[in-house]
Parts: sequence; structure tokens; C-alpha cells
Amino acid sequence: MTAARYPLPKSIATVSLSGTLPEKLEAAAAAGFDGVEIFENDLLHFDGSPAEVRRMAADLGLQILLYQPLRDFEAMSGDVFARNLARAERKFDVMAQLGAEMVLVCSNVQEAAIDDPARAAADLRQMAEAAARRGLRVGYEALAWGRHVRRWQQAWEIVQRADHPALGLVLDSFHTLSLDDSLQGLDAVPADKIFFVQLADAPRLSMDVLSWSRHYRNFPGQGDLPVVDFARAVLQAGYAGPLSLEVFNDDFRAAPARLTAQDGLRSLIWLESEAGGAPLPAPPVLGGVDFVEFAVDYVAGRELAQRLESLGFAHAGRHRSKAVDLYRQGGINLILNAEQDSAAAEHFQLHGPSVCAIGLKVDDARRATARARALLCKEWREPVGPDERVIPALRSPDGMLFHLIDDRDADRSIYESDFMLDASAQAVHHGAGLCAIDHLAQALPANRLDSFVLFYRSVFGMQPEAVHEIADPYGLVKSRAMVSPGQHVQHVRIPLNVSESGRTATGRFVSAYAGSGVHHIAFRSDRIEQTLKAIDRSRAAMLHVPDNYYDDVAARLALDDGLLGRLQRLDLLYDRDALGEFLHAYTEPFHERFFFELVQRAGYLGYGAANAAVRMAAQAQLRHG
Amino acid sequence: MTAARYPLPKSIATVSLSGTLPEKLEAAAAAGFDGVEIFENDLLHFDGSPAEVRRMAADLGLQILLYQPLRDFEAMSGDVFARNLARAERKFDVMAQLGAEMVLVCSNVQEAAIDDPARAAADLRQMAEAAARRGLRVGYEALAWGRHVRRWQQAWEIVQRADHPALGLVLDSFHTLSLDDSLQGLDAVPADKIFFVQLADAPRLSMDVLSWSRHYRNFPGQGDLPVVDFARAVLQAGYAGPLSLEVFNDDFRAAPARLTAQDGLRSLIWLESEAGGAPLPAPPVLGGVDFVEFAVDYVAGRELAQRLESLGFAHAGRHRSKAVDLYRQGGINLILNAEQDSAAAEHFQLHGPSVCAIGLKVDDARRATARARALLCKEWREPVGPDERVIPALRSPDGMLFHLIDDRDADRSIYESDFMLDASAQAVHHGAGLCAIDHLAQALPANRLDSFVLFYRSVFGMQPEAVHEIADPYGLVKSRAMVSPGQHVQHVRIPLNVSESGRTATGRFVSAYAGSGVHHIAFRSDRIEQTLKAIDRSRAAMLHVPDNYYDDVAARLALDDGLLGRLQRLDLLYDRDALGEFLHAYTEPFHERFFFELVQRAGYLGYGAANAAVRMAAQAQLRHG
Repeated sequence: MTAARYPLPKSIATVSLSGTLPEKLEAAAAAGFDGVEIFENDLLHFDGSPAEVRRMAADLGLQILLYQPLRDFEAMSGDVFARNLARAERKFDVMAQLGAEMVLVCSNVQEAAIDDPARAAADLRQMAEAAARRGLRVGYEALAWGRHVRRWQQAWEIVQRADHPALGLVLDSFHTLSLDDSLQGLDAVPADKIFFVQLADAPRLSMDVLSWSRHYRNFPGQGDLPVVDFARAVLQAGYAGPLSLEVFNDDFRAAPARLTAQDGLRSLIWLESEAGGAPLPAPPVLGGVDFVEFAVDYVAGRELAQRLESLGFAHAGRHRSKAVDLYRQGGINLILNAEQDSAAAEHFQLHGPSVCAIGLKVDDARRATARARALLCKEWREPVGPDERVIPALRSPDGMLFHLIDDRDADRSIYESDFMLDASAQAVHHGAGLCAIDHLAQALPANRLDSFVLFYRSVFGMQPEAVHEIADPYGLVKSRAMVSPGQHVQHVRIPLNVSESGRTATGRFVSAYAGSGVHHIAFRSDRIEQTLKAIDRSRAAMLHVPDNYYDDVAARLALDDGLLGRLQRLDLLYDRDALGEFLHAYTEPFHERFFFELVQRAGYLGYGAANAAVRMAAQAQLRHG
Repeated sequence: MTAARYPLPKSIATVSLSGTLPEKLEAAAAAGFDGVEIFENDLLHFDGSPAEVRRMAADLGLQILLYQPLRDFEAMSGDVFARNLARAERKFDVMAQLGAEMVLVCSNVQEAAIDDPARAAADLRQMAEAAARRGLRVGYEALAWGRHVRRWQQAWEIVQRADHPALGLVLDSFHTLSLDDSLQGLDAVPADKIFFVQLADAPRLSMDVLSWSRHYRNFPGQGDLPVVDFARAVLQAGYAGPLSLEVFNDDFRAAPARLTAQDGLRSLIWLESEAGGAPLPAPPVLGGVDFVEFAVDYVAGRELAQRLESLGFAHAGRHRSKAVDLYRQGGINLILNAEQDSAAAEHFQLHGPSVCAIGLKVDDARRATARARALLCKEWREPVGPDERVIPALRSPDGMLFHLIDDRDADRSIYESDFMLDASAQAVHHGAGLCAIDHLAQALPANRLDSFVLFYRSVFGMQPEAVHEIADPYGLVKSRAMVSPGQHVQHVRIPLNVSESGRTATGRFVSAYAGSGVHHIAFRSDRIEQTLKAIDRSRAAMLHVPDNYYDDVAARLALDDGLLGRLQRLDLLYDRDALGEFLHAYTEPFHERFFFELVQRAGYLGYGAANAAVRMAAQAQLRHG
């Protein structure tokens, strides 16, 4: 056996994409796929001959790798089988026109299917013989809900028994992993008998496997299944064929095909690297959020500056060449960018006052950039003045910029190189005691969550946490945090929030904001009570918490009256987990765009999800008066 | 035991409605509920005292019937139980302020709960004793996912064992029916020990019961559970307390609370009648669709008339007093209404050319109207000229009118009374052979399907069929048909279509149309091939079907070449079921508003769902060129 040549060809089944067949092919080609699987219905609904489809794919540089599927073929009674063979011959005609060399046969789901592997093998052998006469090949796949054949080992036994060179195995990660089927022995299947490999991930859901498969599959890295382990076993077997996405997903059916296709290719590149195929540069080691940059104009900038000052921030400097100001407190850097003709100005025009960029501390910006580029990310370069530092930046899927701050070779910080710092800014300004950015929450359109999970996971090596559901008064909000790995002091934490309802704060933000963005910025204090006493809570527009909340917390968590009274006087919310306590307070929203949170966490790992509904109700009450 | 007095009081849990607590109370009162259950989080998030909630409810004429829930209370270790009792006392304080006389205790879900009914009984007895000291009562309910107590019989045994006058049983239809638990013996529980009854329906879904309960419950009559059987057993037991809705539903959380509340009350009124409580007038016996009325202006009216004429319809008359024309073919009456200052004109202004009214043949219009009124429907009365018939009409939830045509006492048809019929219209015009309206499909916003299912089911006695999922190229479409009962020749069939995607034909229709409406009208022919040959298919804008479709139908259903060729030449689609064949052809859409279908059904019961995706793809291709 010769070693497989990496990278492996990348492919996508047309059923994974939205639109008509020409739109699907165009999107797959634009993303950079090498080939496609043609899903039967896409061909049936296309008003042109299979030969036209073949020409269209060729013009786009796409191979048609598989025609799928032929269903309920094997192990039927004699007369049905004769009809099935005639049906297969008609499909072979189509494949010949299409230029597809392989057909997928799924294990039979009919009640009438006979439980006899020998018969299945004989039937498939006969079909393979018919296919071989036309130079075609047949791939047999175990459906997770097949009548008798559900596991890949069963399909493999049948393929071995049939023993025909034109018959091989098709593996599908979803069918195997959804059953928690064993991967043992997979790496020992002869590579030339694995004809094709289909890949899909999925969130863990407790429902019947058929509904799960038809509606909730997603791309590798977007779900909870061990797709990397599956792919590793396949690569260890020496498989050298295409890695192909086959994803049935209601959101993908409705989303713009180009966006979906790009996510798909990103997921396969990431997966192959994780599984031991073509490697990617290692993900960056994240050292925290270095700065948050707001796009403002003059008026919004003044107002935001006042709000920040009321929270204990101080003006620390002015950019050397641009209309950009720096505000600081503890280790927090906030940048207000009002420069014309900049990325920030463009952001402001689209989204109003908003977070337009985030600075992430990384161990090696060059390696991080190379990884991002390999994962299809767009880079961004801002014009720089003399003596200013060139900071590499990536565009996130919603257009926000991530600057990668790598201070290894720098003799001074980016603030020293790019800003004229105020005299007072030489020493750390402790202000009200806020010391770091604890987390940043992003609001996304409901169908974009998977896309962002994949972006943060693949490009930055962050891990998705469990999904929380929070009841806004006007609909449910789902929240899933992306967190940098390990137990750093300086975790980067980005909860991603979505809502199907356009009436929740999250849903309103997304529509008002013409897309997605950071709508919630949490600053950490190690002494939150002192911090709250140090600021003018009315000027800072701290959010009022209803008394009923405190009655309940007291009953629920048995807090002593002293603590309870202090919390209540400061409108502080309280939560705890096995590791520690979490105290937090919110501000009212700034122009319904974003709000701030002040938190104190001692060991605690979450985000106060138990209290988020209280905050949402209080913010809703503000809106509705 | 004295007989219960009907109608029973109607109540709703605040968790069933969207918004802040004041908005929820206002919506419940506006719909006409007698009382509410206060869901704990709604109180916790409210920035006002429980006493203020009490005043607000009183001002709105609402009783606070239940405070809910107290969780994980009984059968815990001694020290936990002591804390739980202290917690209960704090909640009793809240209830006293709130004026709520009963608290709901759900069966314990904690791992640590002890499997000992005697201990549970003793704990609940102690709690009941504490409640009784303050004049309060405790209702105990078996949660379907309780740790040890899951079935109503178990809860009932514990209540009996505790034997305290302030402790009784709370029954919840979802918890009982989701487990397929037996109703046997329910009608023998002493009525005075059933303290409260909560009602919810749900679609049949194969998922874990907790997720099912938290996201997919809906109102009685909207789902698939035998809620009527449950309610009948409760009423047979002599229960005379409130019927209360407790529904956790993601869509309800996001929908306008007043709409949801009205649906809720409608569902309870219907349910009580079905279960043997306060009766409603019987639903009408439907005798088919008598006419379909289009709102048009002069220009759209002319264009539509041409389209109808190309399908074999002929002008049959002009309304005596209005700018309204009648077109006829076989037994089909189509009305084009261009009258100013009418309901149709209002409809046209909102929705453009569209179906604004449907005439349904009923056995007794007076009884049907009385039933609709009792079910909270709005009536509509159009101004009538001298000698014109007064036709009672109802507004459907999207504003479309249903006219109820009752010809029992009439010496002539409404067409004869209201129209100046053309001389030629004395005889039936057979045109191209279309003879009846086969079905009308309505496109609805995705979250309104349940509401319309309830409307058609309760008001007209129609039955919902199974949900079909159809893949439009730009997203999934769900279709659920409402069908009049029995095996009439003149079934009324109304498939309801929804799509989460705004890019499907259904989704685009709903947004373009500013709401919902009929977007698909199917006419029946008994000789469809002749019909298609009789019309000018190009002028009628018949939809072209791709050749690939016929290749597949031939392979799949083994059609003979003669039939296949005829189908293909006429762009006819083919389906069959156990009962017969279905042949159908579509037109291109009229201004992207609605399209026509020509069908021939011989015994066949469906709507060609297998072919709907072909039609959607072809229509999409027209839009995208």
C-alpha cells in the first residue's frame, strides 16, 4: 500500500447547499471544492439533461464523484429484485450521461427486506457486475436506520462476502457516530475497498436518529460528535479518496449557498489536519483580549467616552495619525475610532456605534495568520503611519476585525508605538478597580451560530461549551460560549447568542444592527462591591434589579441577610457553582447597541446564565417603559 | 357530590404568554380568561411587589388561582427537608401578598430524592399543615420526568396516604399523555381531591419528554394527544374547578400575547364542549367550496379574467349593485371583486390581488354562526342591496372571510339572487372540463400554523392530517392539510403551508403578502388529459416539468411507455397510493401571488406531496430565470 497523498480531494453533496442545481455547483466551485456528489432530487428538478450538468460541472472545474442514492435495493424477494436491477440500469444510463463513475447504495430500509447477509451480498455482486460492464462502481453504505444492516461492520462483511472489484464500502461519519458504533477495526479495512467517505457532524439531541439525521446534521467541528476520531481511523486505514460533506440541515437549505460552501470547505481542511492528514499551522495560544475598538462618530464618541468615564475609565492617549482615542482602566484598553475612510468608518456606516475590532494577544501572529489563511479567512491591513506598528488582522465572518497582538519582538506596546499617550497614562490607572475584559458576547442571526462556532474553533482553537437556553420575555435566547483551552488566567471567552424571535433583545439587536456583533462587554473586578461604590451608578446607568429576585435568591441559595442586603443595595446578581461564586451587575444599553457588565468571579466558570433572564426582563421593561 | 356547574372557569399560566407580567395579565384579561397561574419567574422578573401584582390582576378582573411551582420538595434527607420547609414558608409569604390560595408542588426530580412514598406523603402532609395554618392549599403533581413519581396514580396514592384536607392532586394532561399513561380510574378520584387541572396538547415527536415538554407543548386541539379523553375523564370525576392552560412553547414565547391568549381560550371552550362540559352548537356539515372570491382592481381584474378564460372559465354575470363579476366552469364559481369601499378593497390594499373570501356550503348557517361566535370568531356583515341575500360571514384569523352558504330555505342560489346572470349562464358551462374546487392551500407565517389548525378544527370541525415536509430549493416547507370529516364527495380540503425560510416560495409569499392567504387553488377535472388538450397551455401559463422527472417516475413506478409519453407531453405529474391515481399539472404563478393546479383524483387521498418539490423547483427557476 502506498501512502495517501495529502491534502485529500474535498467534495460536497449538493443536498448540503441551498438553491437550484446550477447555484449549488457554482457555490461549491467558488468555495474551492474539487468535486461534488449529485443528490438525485437535484437532478430530477433540473430542467436540462444530465449531459448538460456534466458540462456545467466541468466548466466550473468540479468532478462529479458520486451519484446518490439508490435505495432499498438488496435482499428483496426475487421479482422485486428483478425490478430493482432494471431500475439500477436506468440509473446507470443517467450516470453515464452525467459522467459519474460511482453510485451510492444505502442499506435497505423496507419492512420486506430479508435478513440474510448472503443474499444481500449476492444481490450487490450482481449489481456490481452490471455496473462493471459499463465501467461504473458501486459503494454500499450502512444507514443508521436500515432494516437489518445498520453498522459499518455489517456493510463491510457483506462487501467482503460479495467479493467484487466494482463493489466497495462507503463510510458516513453520521451513520456510525449517531449509533455510538465502534470505530475498532476501521483502520484495518483495506484502503482500496473504502470507495468513498462522507462526513457530517451533529449536535447531541435525544430524538429518533432519522429526524436527527434529516434536519440537524452540520459540518465537522460544528457539532458534538467525535468526527475527528472517525476521520483519523479512515486516514489510518490509508484512505486516499475524497472527503465529502453530506449534510441535511434545515438552516443550510435556507442559507446563501456560498456562505455554506465556504464553511464546509473550512470544516474539511480543519478536520483533515486534526485527523492526521495535511497539517495546518498550530492554533495561536491566546493570552487574553488586549483591546476592544468601537466605531463611533464625533457625537457617539463623546457620549461613549462619558459613559466609560462614569465606569472609572480615563482618557489615556490620542492616536499618532488618526481620529482615534484610547481609554484605559487596569489592564483594559478601549479604543474609540472616529477616523474617516477607515474600516471603522465603514463599520459605523453599516452598524452605527458598535464594536468594530478586537485585539487578541497571541504567541505568534505570523503562525496564527498562516493558519487563518489556510482556513479561508480574509486578512485585513489598515494603512499605517510612520513608526506605527503593523498589526495583522483577520475579518471574522460578520466583518468584525480580529487584530493579532504579538509582543515578542516589540520593544514597546502597540499603545506606545501608535498613540501619543497622556502624561498621566505612564502609570496604570486603577480607576474603579476594573482590571480585565472577562468576556465579550456576540449576537448572531439564528442560523449563523454553527458558522461562528466553526470559525472560533478552527481558526483560534477555542472550544464550544454547552448551549444554555435563556427566557427573554419575548422569546428564547440560546447561548453557547467559545472559550480558549487550558486554565489560563487570561482566558478568552466569547458567548455567542442567537434567538429565533425577532422580539428579544438579541433578535432586535441583530436586525437593528444589520448583522451580528458584540452586544455585551463584561469587565472584571476583583472587588466588585468597592467598584460599584466607587462609581456614580446613576451616571453609569446601572440596571435596577427587582426586589422579588432577592427574595427568591435568599430562599433558593440560603444567603445570609448581610450579604443579601449588600447585593440588593448594589443591584448585584449572584450565582455560584461547585468552584466558586459569581457576582455581577449590568448597565442599561448604550443606544440599544451594547451594554456593559461588571463581574467578579472566584473560580466560577460560567456567565451567570441563571440570572440572564432577570437582566433581559429588566432591559425589556426599560424599552417598553 | 353536587353536579359541576358548567362552563368551568378558564385560566392560563403566565408562562404560556409572551412579554412582561403586566402584558401577560392584560392579554389574558382581554381574551376573557377568568384567572391565571403565576409562574414564579414572571414574578421574580417583575419590578414591583406581589401586592401590586394582586391589585393589577384584580383591576383586570383576573383571579390568581395558583402560584407555581415549588420544586424538589418532598422525600429528601432530613436537613434538606428542613431547608425546603423554610423555603416553602418564604413562598407562602409571597402567596399571601399575591392573594394566591394554592401552590403547585411538582414531584421531585433530584438524584438525591428518596424512593419512599410514605416519606413523600409525610413531607407533603407537613407542608399542607403549614399551608393550612395560613389558609393556603397545596396541589401535588406528578412530573413525567420525576425521579420516582411520574404517573398520576403515584401522586394520587401519596395524596391519599398523606390524608390532609389542604393537600390535593394537580393533574396535567401533558404529563399523563406524554407517557401514554392510563386514564383508567381517573374518573373515580373524588372531585374535591382534584385541586387543579392543567391542560396542554403537543405534536407527537420522538424526543426526550423533557425537551418535548419545554419547547413543543401547544393548546388542546393543536396537537396530537388525546386531550379530549383526558378532559372527559376529569369531568366525569365531577371536577368543578378551573381548566387551566400550561404551555411551554418557543413560538408562543415570541408571539403577540393577545393572539396567543385568544387561541388559548378558544381551545378551552372547544375542549370543554368535546369533553362533555358546557356544550357548543354542533359544527357545520360542510358541502364543499361554493365560491372563491378574489380582491382585484380594474387592471388586475382584467388580467385575472384572461387567465381564467384561458383555463376554460366563462363570464357568467355581474353583481346587481357592485363592481363584482362572476366566472364559472362546471360547479366552480369564481368571483372577481373590484368594488370600492368594501372588505375586498381593504384586502386589496393590504395584500394586492388575492383571495379575500371563500364561500362554504353548510347545512345550517345559523348554527354554524352561533358556534363560531361561541368560539370567539369575529362576524362580518357586508352591506347588501335590495333583493340580495344576506350571507353570514366569519373572519378567519388572517382576515380572510368565510361566507356560510345555506341554501335550505332559498328558492334560488346566491348567484341568481345577487347577480345579473348572462343569458348563456342559464346552462352549466363545461368549458375545459374543470368541475369542482379540489383544494385550496394557504401559506401562513411559520409560527401561525397551530393557530389555524385550531381555527379550522374547532369552528368547522375539520380534521388535521399528518405533516408533510417538502424541499423547496431554498428551504423546507411544512404542509398540513385540514379536511372535512367523513367520506363526502364534496370534501373541503385546505392544506396549510409554512416555511421557516424567507427564501422559499411559501416564505416569500408570506412576507410579500403582509400576512397569510390562499396561494394555491386546485380545480378538479374527471378527464384531465382532455382538459389540458382543450386549453391553450401557453396562454394558461402551464408550468413546464423537467424531463429528468419522467425518467425517474418511469424507473420508480414502472409506468408503461404510452402513459409516460402522454404525461410528459402534457407536463402532467403522477402519483398513486393504495386507493388510486393522481394526475396533476400546475400553472405559473399569477404575479407571484397564487397559482392554479388542475387535478384528477380517482380514489387517491393526498395532494401529490411527492411531486411538490418538482413544482417548487420549477417555480423557483422561473423567478430566477
